[in-house]
Amino acid sequence: MKKKIGVVLSGCGVFDGAEIHESVLTLLAIDRAGAEAICMAPNIEQMHVINHLKGEPTDEKRNVLVESARIARGEIKDIAEVKVDDIDGLIFPGGFGAAKNLSDFAVNGENCKVNPDVIRLVREFAAKKKPQATCCIAPAMYAKVFDGESISPTLTIGNDKDVAGKIEQMGSKHQECAATDMICDDENKIVSTPAYMSGKNISEVAEGIEKTVNKLISMI
Amino acid sequence: MKKKIGVVLSGCGVFDGAEIHESVLTLLAIDRAGAEAICMAPNIEQMHVINHLKGEPTDEKRNVLVESARIARGEIKDIAEVKVDDIDGLIFPGGFGAAKNLSDFAVNGENCKVNPDVIRLVREFAAKKKPQATCCIAPAMYAKVFDGESISPTLTIGNDKDVAGKIEQMGSKHQECAATDMICDDENKIVSTPAYMSGKNISEVAEGIEKTVNKLISMI
Repeated sequence: MKKKIGVVLSGCGVFDGAEIHESVLTLLAIDRAGAEAICMAPNIEQMHVINHLKGEPTDEKRNVLVESARIARGEIKDIAEVKVDDIDGLIFPGGFGAAKNLSDFAVNGENCKVNPDVIRLVREFAAKKKPQATCCIAPAMYAKVFDGESISPTLTIGNDKDVAGKIEQMGSKHQECAATDMICDDENKIVSTPAYMSGKNISEVAEGIEKTVNKLISMI
Repeated sequence: MKKKIGVVLSGCGVFDGAEIHESVLTLLAIDRAGAEAICMAPNIEQMHVINHLKGEPTDEKRNVLVESARIARGEIKDIAEVKVDDIDGLIFPGGFGAAKNLSDFAVNGENCKVNPDVIRLVREFAAKKKPQATCCIAPAMYAKVFDGESISPTLTIGNDKDVAGKIEQMGSKHQECAATDMICDDENKIVSTPAYMSGKNISEVAEGIEKTVNKLISMI
């Protein structure tokens, strides 16, 4: 039986959804490690739609699950239907979707709200000491999930002082890290990597994500 | 100076645009080889929009250049503005976008039409013996570009007998190939790989595309 890794997507495109490179590189690393990716996303409307050519919002409405299905080639589940026992590991690629659709960190910072199914899976994974990983801006969302809880994870988003400060305001610890690397909170089994928060090119991001996925799978 | 590789995208999503995995794996292989990707796409409306969760068409309208910009993280050019001398190599990832937006091969088969800027770049590359590459279903479009021309390239789309037959009807030669490999028409400097036309997983596709990109760059 292959190990099953839940990959939580948040749309399709860096400015309003899941970062596409990070998502694909996550799927590649999972497959190369001999594990199986189980893609999932919430069945909700996106915060907004950004024209990625102009970098401006449009009047369109798009659904997070439907757009995430583009990255997953149609093979994707509604996160509301996924139970913690269905999967052995959990990973969140980044992109603004983690801060606009899975949470509203992009708007409300340390006072953000997080999607209830994300909270459920992340907290249950932590409670059961099952391994999970979070990339790019998604660690900020993780800090909120554990804000006021008994767990205070160590996370990285690279070296952005503003976001790192907000992570600490939410009660987590921040540790600097290069895009080509990852850090692991061994006690809580939470791996994180900066990805495009500080990565200068796709090769750096690929290296950090591959290390993240391998570390995640090694803890199953 | 880095070698510049034009990457022609056709939207964002396997069923109505550029295949996302193939596109990202192409960008990764180019960067890892020390070259620079120059993403481009036509500024035209998509043939249609497919809901990738249900596999069904929707009433939406989307623009090929704007959607391709999602894969390119905003860094993309209108293909109409790209001259053959601006780039050293050219590559087309696959996805139905190559057969619906860059051409209408998906509807009209061997009687398809191809986007005029695609015709212009591909024919000028061939005329100047500059190297180019074509992945997945995009080789069928290549066969049409050379239909009736003096060049009769050897191409692969894997082992699909129906599509291979249409490629030969359009005057090109078809050679079977595994998804993990590529073939090269040395005389015309055209590399091709089956990618998801026959690839069973993302690792197989990554292997074939990496070989394709490396071969392409080696011929510059």
